[in-house]
Amino acid sequence: MISIKTPTDIKDLARGAVLLGTGGGGDPYIGELFLQAQLDKGRTPNIVPVDSIADDALVITIAGVGSPPVMLEYLVSDDTLLEILARMETLLGRKVDALISAEIGGINSMFPLALSAMTGLPVLDGDGVGRAVPRTEMCTFSIYGCLATPAVVLDELGNSVVFETIDDLTAEAVLRSITAALGASLFGAFYPMSGAQAKATAVRNTVTQTQEIGRCIRTARDGSGDVFAQLLGYLNSRPGRCAHLLFDGKIVDVTHETRDGWHWGRVTIVPLTASKDVFTVDIQNEFTVARFNGRTVTVMPDLISILDRESAEPITAERLAYGQRVKVIGSSADPLLRTPKALAVMGPRNFGLDEDFIPIEQLV
Amino acid sequence: MISIKTPTDIKDLARGAVLLGTGGGGDPYIGELFLQAQLDKGRTPNIVPVDSIADDALVITIAGVGSPPVMLEYLVSDDTLLEILARMETLLGRKVDALISAEIGGINSMFPLALSAMTGLPVLDGDGVGRAVPRTEMCTFSIYGCLATPAVVLDELGNSVVFETIDDLTAEAVLRSITAALGASLFGAFYPMSGAQAKATAVRNTVTQTQEIGRCIRTARDGSGDVFAQLLGYLNSRPGRCAHLLFDGKIVDVTHETRDGWHWGRVTIVPLTASKDVFTVDIQNEFTVARFNGRTVTVMPDLISILDRESAEPITAERLAYGQRVKVIGSSADPLLRTPKALAVMGPRNFGLDEDFIPIEQLV
Repeated sequence: MISIKTPTDIKDLARGAVLLGTGGGGDPYIGELFLQAQLDKGRTPNIVPVDSIADDALVITIAGVGSPPVMLEYLVSDDTLLEILARMETLLGRKVDALISAEIGGINSMFPLALSAMTGLPVLDGDGVGRAVPRTEMCTFSIYGCLATPAVVLDELGNSVVFETIDDLTAEAVLRSITAALGASLFGAFYPMSGAQAKATAVRNTVTQTQEIGRCIRTARDGSGDVFAQLLGYLNSRPGRCAHLLFDGKIVDVTHETRDGWHWGRVTIVPLTASKDVFTVDIQNEFTVARFNGRTVTVMPDLISILDRESAEPITAERLAYGQRVKVIGSSADPLLRTPKALAVMGPRNFGLDEDFIPIEQLV
Repeated sequence: MISIKTPTDIKDLARGAVLLGTGGGGDPYIGELFLQAQLDKGRTPNIVPVDSIADDALVITIAGVGSPPVMLEYLVSDDTLLEILARMETLLGRKVDALISAEIGGINSMFPLALSAMTGLPVLDGDGVGRAVPRTEMCTFSIYGCLATPAVVLDELGNSVVFETIDDLTAEAVLRSITAALGASLFGAFYPMSGAQAKATAVRNTVTQTQEIGRCIRTARDGSGDVFAQLLGYLNSRPGRCAHLLFDGKIVDVTHETRDGWHWGRVTIVPLTASKDVFTVDIQNEFTVARFNGRTVTVMPDLISILDRESAEPITAERLAYGQRVKVIGSSADPLLRTPKALAVMGPRNFGLDEDFIPIEQLV
């Protein structure tokens, strides 16, 4: 089983989490620091397979909500995570048996692991999406029948909110509004579910895969081979999944706009050669659609990742800048995200795109 | 002691609540219907003096939050009010001993009375402001040391939120954001306080005064005397308080605008004679400042009420219309609202007015 015991393990996990964050999900840096602080105290997370959990176990997600730059100001404390756990247990009237990441892409890969290290509670090797997504209801837990609430959120100042909503769209609306009202970063517990529900809905093995992606990039970089060939080799080795190099070039334009609580933008990339090809990636918190000369080559919920073309270090959307030389990788989402039921919640039209989902393997 | 036993009693109370609502607070009509439904079942509210409550009693406010037109669509049910009470008792770990109105002006005069009728719990003859105000922290409970939370809010659809904030400005921000997110009218319990705190902070006798104002208008209207003379006589009979007729005329302009979650506007009134005088009343949910030829004659937190010039029926801001013939009354706020501490929270500058509070008795 995967283990997180050294700074290198954390760094590998973080690197993989940025790749799966597909531009969003928050820079895991703060989470790395926090998890490292646990390792420094001799505490390591206890990661177990999704299928090892008992049907009647109580599983919850632990997540940071809000703007990662604000999170940096209000660095989460041990007490906050322990308080969230205690409040959720009081609310539900029983002990929590296991934790699971809400989304493995970005910063929320880290907090369940940190709380596991603190408490010894197992963390399931899976999550609700296998990537990053911008909204509460965009996850397999919700799509396949769990509810996001009752949920508890806290901030570091001492404000707290418990909410229970009749559906997850409403949960998202309440959570987003509270985050805006409190003006600071929140941490919370969501999606209380049984072990049986976790087994029926989770995207599996994603903690392991995230660490392996990061490790693959690191070891390939340290070796003599082609880093991207090795990374694509790893991504394509996952059963039923595929990945492709979509483009290689330099960034000639990046637009950023914050509107309606979202980070919108577009990256334009051209080849390093004299070719007239143009490659664009649209941003709505995450990378939503990649187009080669105007033709879609990868679209939500499939994954688009932009990496430094030499080091293969994945880059978050807010760090993209003019002149960067990058490679873009597209990869297929977990099959649980590609069903009609899932596409109704997180297909292209849910991101304002006027096109239907076509799998990357048909587009490339 | 005041009693509410007949439809006329309710109507009197509602009429007084509109006058004290100073344009805002919500049309009490839905509350009237709801309270009448309790009377129809043979249940009457149990109103007791503020000073009769034991120091160690637990007192809470019960209030509707949000847009009164939306409230009309989702008419509050008995179950909702009982559920709020039960949840507050669970949250606080003890039985509630008494209810008190958050604000006596407008619709929130009615709900504590209805819940009292349903449960037999006493309602204190007082409230947190003696008028209507647009924000949670603008009340004597908050100003003199009680906290608005822990609080519980519910809607009729089954959504619920419990929140606890470090101060009442934050409570207001959270409450406003939740109301916007849920998009429907909410009902809640706020300001859990001890009997000792209620006695130290409440504006006293306001349920009685509200009903007496309504009754005074009704009986004066049915009699042969001058309705306004009798109403001013009553308002001036309250110890330490004064009231004046500010203007008599017809409305020649009303502007309404909804911006930042507030109802903004201005009413312009001119005399029925050929005089060139101009009288204006600014609206920010409530009437905030009345000016005669540009000179302030009454300003927050003193009360401005606009009434039909024949029937003396008080008119809410949203029902003001071109051509209405009206009289405007100004009256002094309760002394608890005029201290430096209170004016720091609900003086003119808190409503964006560039002037300091001057009592009506010095202005008129």
